[in-house]
Amino acid sequence: VASVRARCLNGLPEVRSGADLGDLIVRAAAEQSPALALADEQIVVLAHKVISKAEGAVVPLQEVRPTRRALQLAGEQDKDPRVVQVVLDQSREILRAQRGVLISRTHHGFVCANAGVDTSNAVDGTVITLPVDPDSSARTLRERLTALTGSSPAVLITDSFGRAWRHGQCDVAIGCAGIEPLDDWRGRKDSSGMELRATWLAVADSIAATADLARAKDSREPVVIVEGLGHLVMRRDGPGAAGLLRAVDEDLFR
Amino acid sequence: VASVRARCLNGLPEVRSGADLGDLIVRAAAEQSPALALADEQIVVLAHKVISKAEGAVVPLQEVRPTRRALQLAGEQDKDPRVVQVVLDQSREILRAQRGVLISRTHHGFVCANAGVDTSNAVDGTVITLPVDPDSSARTLRERLTALTGSSPAVLITDSFGRAWRHGQCDVAIGCAGIEPLDDWRGRKDSSGMELRATWLAVADSIAATADLARAKDSREPVVIVEGLGHLVMRRDGPGAAGLLRAVDEDLFR
Repeated sequence: VASVRARCLNGLPEVRSGADLGDLIVRAAAEQSPALALADEQIVVLAHKVISKAEGAVVPLQEVRPTRRALQLAGEQDKDPRVVQVVLDQSREILRAQRGVLISRTHHGFVCANAGVDTSNAVDGTVITLPVDPDSSARTLRERLTALTGSSPAVLITDSFGRAWRHGQCDVAIGCAGIEPLDDWRGRKDSSGMELRATWLAVADSIAATADLARAKDSREPVVIVEGLGHLVMRRDGPGAAGLLRAVDEDLFR
Repeated sequence: VASVRARCLNGLPEVRSGADLGDLIVRAAAEQSPALALADEQIVVLAHKVISKAEGAVVPLQEVRPTRRALQLAGEQDKDPRVVQVVLDQSREILRAQRGVLISRTHHGFVCANAGVDTSNAVDGTVITLPVDPDSSARTLRERLTALTGSSPAVLITDSFGRAWRHGQCDVAIGCAGIEPLDDWRGRKDSSGMELRATWLAVADSIAATADLARAKDSREPVVIVEGLGHLVMRRDGPGAAGLLRAVDEDLFR
Protein backbone atom coordinates (compact mmCIF):
# COMPACT_ATOMS: atom_id res chain seq x y z
CA VAL A 1 0.00 0.00 0.00
CA ALA A 2 1.34 3.43 -0.92
CA SER A 3 1.39 5.33 2.33
CA VAL A 4 2.58 8.70 3.52
CA ARG A 5 3.11 9.44 7.19
CA ALA A 6 3.86 12.68 9.01
CA ARG A 7 4.99 12.60 12.63
CA CYS A 8 5.63 15.45 14.96
CA LEU A 9 9.01 15.69 16.64
CA ASN A 10 8.45 16.34 20.35
CA GLY A 11 10.85 17.68 22.90
CA LEU A 12 12.64 20.31 20.87
CA PRO A 13 13.79 23.01 23.31
CA GLU A 14 13.17 26.72 22.77
CA VAL A 15 15.50 27.72 19.92
CA ARG A 16 17.73 30.78 20.43
CA SER A 17 19.96 32.77 18.13
CA GLY A 18 23.03 30.77 17.18
CA ALA A 19 21.49 27.41 18.19
CA ASP A 20 22.81 24.26 16.51
CA LEU A 21 19.42 23.26 15.15
CA GLY A 22 20.75 20.09 13.51
CA ASP A 23 22.06 18.85 16.84
CA LEU A 24 18.80 19.72 18.64
CA ILE A 25 16.78 17.79 16.04
CA VAL A 26 19.00 14.71 16.10
CA ARG A 27 18.87 14.60 19.92
CA ALA A 28 15.10 15.08 20.07
CA ALA A 29 14.55 12.37 17.45
CA ALA A 30 16.79 9.90 19.29
CA GLU A 31 15.00 10.55 22.58
CA GLN A 32 11.53 10.28 21.14
CA SER A 33 11.76 6.98 19.32
CA PRO A 34 14.28 4.80 17.50
CA ALA A 35 11.85 4.82 14.56
CA LEU A 36 12.42 8.55 14.20
CA ALA A 37 16.18 8.16 13.74
CA LEU A 38 16.87 10.18 10.63
CA ALA A 39 17.13 8.25 7.38
CA ASP A 40 17.88 9.09 3.78
CA GLU A 41 14.34 8.68 2.53
CA GLN A 42 12.78 11.00 5.11
CA ILE A 43 11.86 14.65 4.81
CA VAL A 44 12.48 16.91 7.80
CA VAL A 45 9.92 19.73 7.67
CA LEU A 46 10.44 22.83 9.81
CA ALA A 47 8.19 25.81 10.46
CA HIS A 48 10.42 28.72 9.44
CA LYS A 49 10.15 30.34 12.86
CA VAL A 50 12.80 28.05 14.38
CA ILE A 51 15.15 28.73 11.48
CA SER A 52 14.57 32.48 11.81
CA LYS A 53 15.21 32.34 15.55
CA ALA A 54 18.38 30.25 15.15
CA GLU A 55 19.62 32.68 12.49
CA GLY A 56 18.71 35.74 14.54
CA ALA A 57 16.10 36.96 12.04
CA VAL A 58 14.37 38.83 14.86
CA VAL A 59 13.81 42.59 14.93
CA PRO A 60 13.39 44.51 18.22
CA LEU A 61 10.65 47.04 17.47
CA GLN A 62 12.24 49.70 19.66
CA GLU A 63 15.12 49.89 17.16
CA VAL A 64 12.80 50.55 14.21
CA ARG A 65 12.38 54.14 12.95
CA PRO A 66 9.32 54.26 10.67
CA THR A 67 9.68 56.26 7.47
CA ARG A 68 6.95 58.59 6.21
CA ARG A 69 5.66 55.85 3.92
CA ALA A 70 5.40 53.40 6.83
CA LEU A 71 3.59 56.00 8.95
CA GLN A 72 1.13 56.69 6.15
CA LEU A 73 0.44 53.01 5.38
CA ALA A 74 0.12 52.24 9.08
CA GLY A 75 -2.42 55.02 9.49
CA GLU A 76 -4.46 53.86 6.52
CA GLN A 77 -4.41 50.20 7.53
CA ASP A 78 -4.59 50.70 11.30
CA LYS A 79 -1.28 48.97 11.99
CA ASP A 80 1.82 49.58 14.15
CA PRO A 81 4.09 51.86 12.03
CA ARG A 82 7.19 50.01 13.25
CA VAL A 83 5.76 46.67 12.10
CA VAL A 84 4.85 48.25 8.75
CA GLN A 85 8.44 49.52 8.44
CA VAL A 86 9.77 45.99 8.98
CA VAL A 87 7.32 44.71 6.34
CA LEU A 88 8.54 47.39 3.90
CA ASP A 89 12.17 46.49 4.65
CA GLN A 90 11.37 42.84 3.82
CA SER A 91 9.47 43.70 0.61
CA ARG A 92 10.48 44.26 -2.95
CA GLU A 93 6.99 45.55 -3.65
CA ILE A 94 3.63 46.01 -1.89
CA LEU A 95 0.99 44.49 -4.20
CA ARG A 96 -2.09 45.39 -2.17
CA ALA A 97 -2.82 47.43 0.94
CA GLN A 98 -6.45 46.90 1.82
CA ARG A 99 -8.64 45.79 4.70
CA GLY A 100 -5.73 45.99 7.14
CA VAL A 101 -3.70 43.57 5.04
CA LEU A 102 -0.43 44.30 3.26
CA ILE A 103 0.19 41.82 0.44
CA SER A 104 3.87 41.89 -0.30
CA ARG A 105 6.27 40.46 -2.80
CA THR A 106 9.28 39.75 -0.59
CA HIS A 107 12.91 40.12 -1.61
CA HIS A 108 12.90 36.34 -2.13
CA GLY A 109 9.91 36.72 -4.48
CA PHE A 110 7.23 35.19 -2.21
CA VAL A 111 3.79 36.79 -2.41
CA CYS A 112 2.26 36.75 1.06
CA ALA A 113 0.66 38.88 3.76
CA ASN A 114 2.98 41.22 5.69
CA ALA A 115 6.10 39.86 3.93
CA GLY A 116 5.91 36.87 6.25
CA VAL A 117 6.70 39.07 9.26
CA ASP A 118 5.45 37.23 12.33
CA THR A 119 3.96 39.65 14.84
CA SER A 120 2.65 37.03 17.26
CA ASN A 121 5.57 37.87 19.57
CA ALA A 122 5.11 41.62 19.14
CA VAL A 123 3.87 41.97 22.73
CA ASP A 124 7.45 41.07 23.72
CA GLY A 125 8.62 43.92 21.54
CA THR A 126 10.08 41.81 18.74
CA VAL A 127 8.90 40.52 15.38
CA ILE A 128 10.30 37.55 13.49
CA THR A 129 11.13 37.86 9.80
CA LEU A 130 11.59 35.16 7.17
CA PRO A 131 15.10 33.69 6.87
CA VAL A 132 17.24 35.78 4.51
CA ASP A 133 17.82 32.81 2.17
CA PRO A 134 15.63 29.85 3.18
CA ASP A 135 17.02 27.56 0.45
CA SER A 136 20.51 28.18 1.79
CA SER A 137 19.23 27.55 5.34
CA ALA A 138 17.79 24.23 4.18
CA ARG A 139 21.05 23.20 2.49
CA THR A 140 23.10 24.15 5.55
CA LEU A 141 20.82 22.21 7.90
CA ARG A 142 20.84 19.18 5.60
CA GLU A 143 24.63 19.23 5.55
CA ARG A 144 24.70 19.40 9.36
CA LEU A 145 22.21 16.51 9.69
CA THR A 146 24.35 14.44 7.31
CA ALA A 147 27.51 15.24 9.30
CA LEU A 148 25.80 14.20 12.55
CA THR A 149 24.00 11.04 11.40
CA GLY A 150 25.49 9.88 8.11
CA SER A 151 21.99 10.08 6.62
CA SER A 152 20.84 12.78 4.21
CA PRO A 153 17.11 13.36 4.66
CA ALA A 154 15.58 16.15 2.61
CA VAL A 155 14.96 19.40 4.48
CA LEU A 156 11.95 21.61 3.88
CA ILE A 157 11.22 25.00 5.50
CA THR A 158 7.63 26.23 5.58
CA ASP A 159 5.43 29.20 6.27
CA SER A 160 1.63 29.61 6.38
CA PHE A 161 0.41 31.68 3.44
CA GLY A 162 -3.06 32.91 2.62
CA ARG A 163 -4.31 32.34 -0.90
CA ALA A 164 -6.11 34.37 -3.51
CA TRP A 165 -9.80 33.44 -3.86
CA ARG A 166 -9.86 30.97 -0.96
CA HIS A 167 -10.22 31.52 2.77
CA GLY A 168 -7.67 30.41 5.30
CA GLN A 169 -4.00 29.59 5.18
CA CYS A 170 -2.05 26.56 4.05
CA ASP A 171 1.60 25.86 4.71
CA VAL A 172 3.86 26.14 1.69
CA ALA A 173 7.57 25.54 1.10
CA ILE A 174 9.79 28.62 1.36
CA GLY A 175 13.05 26.67 1.33
CA CYS A 176 14.15 23.13 0.56
CA ALA A 177 17.15 20.91 -0.09
CA GLY A 178 17.26 17.32 -1.32
CA ILE A 179 13.88 17.41 -2.98
CA GLU A 180 12.67 18.53 -6.39
CA PRO A 181 9.94 21.06 -5.45
CA LEU A 182 7.96 20.32 -8.62
CA ASP A 183 7.23 16.78 -9.81
CA ASP A 184 6.95 17.06 -13.57
CA TRP A 185 4.58 14.64 -15.33
CA ARG A 186 3.85 16.89 -18.28
CA GLY A 187 3.43 14.87 -21.43
CA ARG A 188 3.44 11.55 -19.59
CA LYS A 189 0.56 9.07 -19.79
CA ASP A 190 -1.36 7.24 -17.12
CA SER A 191 -1.77 3.45 -16.89
CA SER A 192 -4.39 3.45 -19.65
CA GLY A 193 -2.28 5.54 -22.01
CA MET A 194 -4.28 8.73 -21.39
CA GLU A 195 -2.40 11.94 -20.97
CA LEU A 196 -2.33 13.00 -17.34
CA ARG A 197 -4.20 16.13 -16.44
CA ALA A 198 -2.59 17.39 -13.24
CA THR A 199 0.89 17.18 -14.53
CA TRP A 200 3.12 19.63 -12.76
CA LEU A 201 2.78 18.92 -9.10
CA ALA A 202 3.99 21.34 -6.46
CA VAL A 203 5.00 18.46 -4.19
CA ALA A 204 7.06 20.66 -1.87
CA ASP A 205 3.96 22.69 -1.06
CA SER A 206 1.85 19.55 -0.59
CA ILE A 207 4.46 18.18 1.83
CA ALA A 208 4.42 21.47 3.73
CA ALA A 209 0.63 21.22 4.04
CA THR A 210 0.86 17.60 5.18
CA ALA A 211 3.38 18.42 7.90
CA ASP A 212 1.22 21.23 9.25
CA LEU A 213 -1.65 18.78 9.81
CA ALA A 214 0.58 16.74 12.15
CA ARG A 215 1.22 19.73 14.42
CA ALA A 216 -0.91 20.72 17.36
CA LYS A 217 -1.28 24.45 16.87
CA ASP A 218 -1.21 25.29 20.57
CA SER A 219 2.11 23.60 21.31
CA ARG A 220 5.70 24.11 20.23
CA GLU A 221 6.16 21.51 17.54
CA PRO A 222 7.97 23.16 14.68
CA VAL A 223 9.56 19.97 13.32
CA VAL A 224 7.71 17.18 11.52
CA ILE A 225 9.23 14.06 9.96
CA VAL A 226 7.53 12.89 6.74
CA GLU A 227 8.01 9.32 5.53
CA GLY A 228 6.86 7.36 2.50
CA LEU A 229 8.05 9.85 -0.10
CA GLY A 230 11.54 8.47 -0.59
CA HIS A 231 11.06 8.59 -4.37
CA LEU A 232 11.05 12.39 -4.11
CA VAL A 233 14.23 12.63 -2.01
CA MET A 234 17.47 12.99 -3.92
CA ARG A 235 21.18 13.11 -3.20
CA ARG A 236 21.75 16.55 -4.67
CA ASP A 237 20.13 19.56 -3.06
CA GLY A 238 18.25 20.65 -6.20
CA PRO A 239 16.83 24.04 -7.15
CA GLY A 240 15.22 24.81 -3.79
CA ALA A 241 11.83 26.42 -3.20
CA ALA A 242 12.93 29.33 -5.40
CA GLY A 243 11.97 26.97 -8.24
CA LEU A 244 8.32 27.33 -7.20
CA LEU A 245 8.19 31.05 -7.90
CA ARG A 246 6.38 32.12 -11.02
CA ALA A 247 8.21 34.83 -12.96
CA VAL A 248 6.53 38.22 -12.52
CA ASP A 249 5.95 38.60 -16.27
CA GLU A 250 4.19 35.20 -16.43
CA ASP A 251 1.96 36.10 -13.52
CA LEU A 252 -1.69 36.60 -14.49
CA PHE A 253 -2.65 37.98 -11.07
CA ARG A 254 -0.82 41.09 -9.91
CA VAL B 1 3.30 11.03 18.87
CA ALA B 2 0.91 13.11 16.76
CA SER B 3 0.84 11.34 13.42
CA VAL B 4 -1.06 11.67 10.18
CA ARG B 5 -1.20 8.85 7.66
CA ALA B 6 -2.56 8.75 4.10
CA ARG B 7 -3.02 5.39 2.38
CA CYS B 8 -4.08 4.69 -1.13
CA LEU B 9 -7.07 2.45 -1.72
CA ASN B 10 -6.14 -0.10 -4.37
CA GLY B 11 -8.39 -2.25 -6.48
CA LEU B 12 -11.15 0.21 -7.25
CA PRO B 13 -12.63 -0.81 -10.62
CA GLU B 14 -13.19 1.64 -13.47
CA VAL B 15 -16.13 3.80 -12.38
CA ARG B 16 -19.02 4.24 -14.82
CA SER B 17 -22.09 6.46 -14.82
CA GLY B 18 -24.56 5.36 -12.17
CA ALA B 19 -21.99 3.34 -10.21
CA ASP B 20 -22.59 2.81 -6.50
CA LEU B 21 -19.32 4.41 -5.47
CA GLY B 22 -19.90 3.81 -1.76
CA ASP B 23 -20.27 0.09 -2.36
CA LEU B 24 -17.15 -0.02 -4.57
CA ILE B 25 -15.10 1.75 -1.88
CA VAL B 26 -16.30 -0.46 0.97
CA ARG B 27 -15.54 -3.61 -1.05
CA ALA B 28 -12.09 -2.41 -2.12
CA ALA B 29 -11.21 -1.41 1.44
CA ALA B 30 -12.32 -4.78 2.84
CA GLU B 31 -10.30 -6.66 0.22
CA GLN B 32 -7.18 -4.60 0.68
CA SER B 33 -6.72 -4.80 4.42
CA PRO B 34 -8.76 -5.09 7.62
CA ALA B 35 -6.93 -1.98 8.82
CA LEU B 36 -8.61 -0.01 6.04
CA ALA B 37 -12.12 -0.90 7.21
CA LEU B 38 -13.85 2.44 7.35
CA ALA B 39 -14.06 4.08 10.76
CA ASP B 40 -15.60 7.25 12.14
CA GLU B 41 -12.33 9.09 12.60
CA GLN B 42 -11.12 8.54 9.05
CA ILE B 43 -11.34 10.86 6.06
CA VAL B 44 -12.10 9.33 2.67
CA VAL B 45 -10.53 11.56 0.02
CA LEU B 46 -11.58 11.17 -3.62
CA ALA B 47 -10.21 12.75 -6.77
CA HIS B 48 -13.31 14.37 -8.26
CA LYS B 49 -12.97 12.43 -11.50
CA VAL B 50 -14.57 9.29 -10.03
CA ILE B 51 -17.45 11.33 -8.63
CA SER B 52 -17.94 13.06 -11.98
CA LYS B 53 -17.90 9.73 -13.80
CA ALA B 54 -20.36 8.12 -11.38
CA GLU B 55 -22.66 11.14 -11.72
CA GLY B 56 -22.35 11.22 -15.50
CA ALA B 57 -20.65 14.62 -15.54
CA VAL B 58 -19.08 13.73 -18.88
CA VAL B 59 -19.63 15.67 -22.11
CA PRO B 60 -19.25 14.04 -25.55
CA LEU B 61 -17.51 16.71 -27.63
CA GLN B 62 -19.44 15.76 -30.78
CA GLU B 63 -22.61 17.05 -29.13
CA VAL B 64 -21.09 20.47 -28.42
CA ARG B 65 -21.94 23.41 -30.74
CA PRO B 66 -19.44 26.21 -30.08
CA THR B 67 -20.87 29.72 -29.90
CA ARG B 68 -19.17 32.70 -31.55
CA ARG B 69 -17.53 33.60 -28.25
CA ALA B 70 -16.12 30.08 -27.89
CA LEU B 71 -14.82 30.14 -31.46
CA GLN B 72 -13.13 33.49 -30.89
CA LEU B 73 -11.55 32.52 -27.54
CA ALA B 74 -10.44 29.18 -28.99
CA GLY B 75 -8.78 30.95 -31.90
CA GLU B 76 -6.99 33.42 -29.64
CA GLN B 77 -5.82 30.78 -27.17
CA ASP B 78 -5.18 27.97 -29.67
CA LYS B 79 -7.71 25.58 -28.10
CA ASP B 80 -10.45 23.23 -29.31
CA PRO B 81 -13.60 25.43 -29.67
CA ARG B 82 -15.79 22.62 -28.33
CA VAL B 83 -13.68 22.35 -25.18
CA VAL B 84 -13.81 26.14 -24.79
CA GLN B 85 -17.59 25.97 -25.10
CA VAL B 86 -17.76 23.41 -22.29
CA VAL B 87 -15.51 25.66 -20.19
CA LEU B 88 -17.81 28.63 -20.85
CA ASP B 89 -20.86 26.53 -19.94
CA GLN B 90 -19.19 25.65 -16.63
CA SER B 91 -18.16 29.24 -15.87
CA ARG B 92 -19.85 32.17 -14.23
CA GLU B 93 -17.03 34.39 -15.47
CA ILE B 94 -13.71 34.13 -17.33
CA LEU B 95 -11.16 36.04 -15.23
CA ARG B 96 -8.18 35.71 -17.58
CA ALA B 97 -7.58 34.36 -21.06
CA GLN B 98 -3.85 34.44 -21.69
CA ARG B 99 -0.99 32.17 -22.69
CA GLY B 100 -3.41 29.42 -23.72
CA VAL B 101 -4.97 29.37 -20.27
CA LEU B 102 -8.55 30.25 -19.37
CA ILE B 103 -8.87 31.15 -15.71
CA SER B 104 -12.50 30.73 -14.78
CA ARG B 105 -14.74 31.39 -11.84
CA THR B 106 -17.03 28.36 -12.00
CA HIS B 107 -20.72 28.33 -11.17
CA HIS B 108 -19.71 26.90 -7.79
CA GLY B 109 -17.37 29.89 -7.27
CA PHE B 110 -14.04 28.06 -7.69
CA VAL B 111 -11.28 29.99 -9.44
CA CYS B 112 -9.28 27.56 -11.56
CA ALA B 113 -7.95 26.85 -15.03
CA ASN B 114 -10.51 25.75 -17.63
CA ALA B 115 -13.33 25.62 -15.07
CA GLY B 116 -11.91 22.29 -13.91
CA VAL B 117 -12.82 20.68 -17.24
CA ASP B 118 -10.62 17.61 -17.60
CA THR B 119 -9.49 17.15 -21.19
CA SER B 120 -7.10 14.27 -20.55
CA ASN B 121 -9.72 11.92 -22.06
CA ALA B 122 -10.44 14.26 -24.97
CA VAL B 123 -8.79 11.87 -27.43
CA ASP B 124 -11.73 9.57 -26.67
CA GLY B 125 -14.05 12.40 -27.65
CA THR B 126 -15.26 13.25 -24.14
CA VAL B 127 -14.32 15.71 -21.43
CA ILE B 128 -15.10 15.41 -17.74
CA THR B 129 -16.56 18.34 -15.84
CA LEU B 130 -16.64 19.06 -12.12
CA PRO B 131 -19.58 17.57 -10.20
CA VAL B 132 -22.58 19.93 -10.27
CA ASP B 133 -22.65 20.23 -6.46
CA PRO B 134 -19.57 18.58 -4.93
CA ASP B 135 -20.65 19.28 -1.34
CA SER B 136 -23.90 17.49 -2.01
CA SER B 137 -21.96 14.63 -3.66
CA ALA B 138 -19.81 14.35 -0.52
CA ARG B 139 -22.85 14.31 1.76
CA THR B 140 -24.58 11.66 -0.35
CA LEU B 141 -21.50 9.44 -0.42
CA ARG B 142 -21.02 9.84 3.33
CA GLU B 143 -24.60 8.81 3.93
CA ARG B 144 -24.11 5.75 1.72
CA LEU B 145 -20.88 4.77 3.52
CA THR B 146 -22.67 5.09 6.85
CA ALA B 147 -25.57 2.93 5.63
CA LEU B 148 -23.15 0.26 4.42
CA THR B 149 -20.72 0.18 7.34
CA GLY B 150 -22.31 1.88 10.35
CA SER B 151 -19.29 4.20 10.45
CA SER B 152 -19.37 7.84 9.35
CA PRO B 153 -15.96 8.83 8.05
CA ALA B 154 -15.65 12.31 6.64
CA VAL B 155 -15.69 12.56 2.83
CA LEU B 156 -13.57 15.01 0.87
CA ILE B 157 -13.62 15.55 -2.92
CA THR B 158 -10.58 17.13 -4.53
CA ASP B 159 -9.24 18.65 -7.70
CA SER B 160 -5.77 19.85 -8.72
CA PHE B 161 -5.70 23.64 -8.99
CA GLY B 162 -2.90 25.93 -10.10
CA ARG B 163 -2.12 28.89 -7.89
CA ALA B 164 -1.42 32.56 -8.43
CA TRP B 165 2.28 33.45 -8.06
CA ARG B 166 3.52 29.88 -7.62
CA HIS B 167 4.30 27.19 -10.18
CA GLY B 168 2.61 23.82 -10.26
CA GLN B 169 -0.63 22.45 -8.94
CA CYS B 170 -1.78 21.33 -5.52
CA ASP B 171 -4.92 19.40 -4.73
CA VAL B 172 -7.62 21.36 -2.93
CA ALA B 173 -11.03 20.50 -1.54
CA ILE B 174 -13.97 21.15 -3.83
CA GLY B 175 -16.50 19.26 -1.73
CA CYS B 176 -16.64 17.84 1.78
CA ALA B 177 -18.93 16.43 4.45
CA GLY B 178 -18.18 15.64 8.07
CA ILE B 179 -15.29 18.02 8.39
CA GLU B 180 -15.01 21.72 9.14
CA PRO B 181 -13.02 22.98 6.11
CA LEU B 182 -11.44 25.79 8.15
CA ASP B 183 -9.92 25.24 11.59
CA ASP B 184 -10.32 28.55 13.37
CA TRP B 185 -7.67 29.48 15.95
CA ARG B 186 -8.09 33.23 15.61
CA GLY B 187 -7.62 34.98 18.93
CA ARG B 188 -6.37 31.83 20.65
CA LYS B 189 -2.96 31.62 22.35
CA ASP B 190 -0.17 29.08 22.07
CA SER B 191 1.35 27.14 24.98
CA SER B 192 3.40 30.16 26.07
CA GLY B 193 0.44 32.54 25.99
CA MET B 194 1.49 34.14 22.71
CA GLU B 195 -1.16 34.85 20.16
CA LEU B 196 -0.99 32.37 17.31
CA ARG B 197 0.01 33.71 13.95
CA ALA B 198 -1.38 31.25 11.42
CA THR B 199 -4.80 31.14 12.83
CA TRP B 200 -7.34 30.24 10.19
CA LEU B 201 -6.21 26.99 8.71
CA ALA B 202 -7.65 25.66 5.47
CA VAL B 203 -7.40 22.10 6.77
CA ALA B 204 -9.62 20.67 4.02
CA ASP B 205 -7.14 21.90 1.41
CA SER B 206 -4.17 20.58 3.39
CA ILE B 207 -5.86 17.17 3.62
CA ALA B 208 -6.48 17.22 -0.14
CA ALA B 209 -2.77 17.94 -0.71
CA THR B 210 -1.77 15.16 1.69
CA ALA B 211 -3.94 12.60 -0.08
CA ASP B 212 -2.49 13.48 -3.46
CA LEU B 213 1.02 12.65 -2.22
CA ALA B 214 -0.12 9.09 -1.47
CA ARG B 215 -1.23 8.51 -5.06
CA ALA B 216 0.98 7.19 -7.81
CA LYS B 217 0.19 9.55 -10.67
CA ASP B 218 0.46 6.89 -13.37
CA SER B 219 -2.06 4.51 -11.85
CA ARG B 220 -5.78 4.60 -11.14
CA GLU B 221 -5.91 5.40 -7.46
CA PRO B 222 -8.55 8.04 -6.94
CA VAL B 223 -9.35 7.14 -3.32
CA VAL B 224 -7.08 7.78 -0.34
CA ILE B 225 -7.87 7.10 3.32
CA VAL B 226 -6.44 9.65 5.76
CA GLU B 227 -6.05 8.76 9.43
CA GLY B 228 -4.89 10.61 12.52
CA LEU B 229 -7.14 13.63 12.08
CA GLY B 230 -10.12 12.35 14.05
CA HIS B 231 -10.29 15.66 15.94
CA LEU B 232 -11.35 17.30 12.67
CA VAL B 233 -14.09 14.77 11.83
CA MET B 234 -17.55 15.58 13.10
CA ARG B 235 -20.95 13.98 13.19
CA ARG B 236 -22.72 16.71 11.27
CA ASP B 237 -21.82 17.33 7.65
CA GLY B 238 -20.86 20.99 8.18
CA PRO B 239 -20.65 23.85 5.68
CA GLY B 240 -18.82 21.95 2.95
CA ALA B 241 -16.01 23.22 0.76
CA ALA B 242 -18.23 26.14 -0.23
CA GLY B 243 -17.10 27.59 3.10
CA LEU B 244 -13.59 27.95 1.66
CA LEU B 245 -14.64 30.40 -1.04
CA ARG B 246 -13.74 34.04 -0.49
CA ALA B 247 -16.57 36.42 -1.36
CA VAL B 248 -15.90 38.21 -4.65
CA ASP B 249 -16.04 41.66 -3.00
CA GLU B 250 -13.42 40.61 -0.40
CA ASP B 251 -11.13 39.30 -3.10
CA LEU B 252 -7.99 41.41 -3.54
CA PHE B 253 -6.93 39.55 -6.71
CA ARG B 254 -9.38 39.61 -9.62
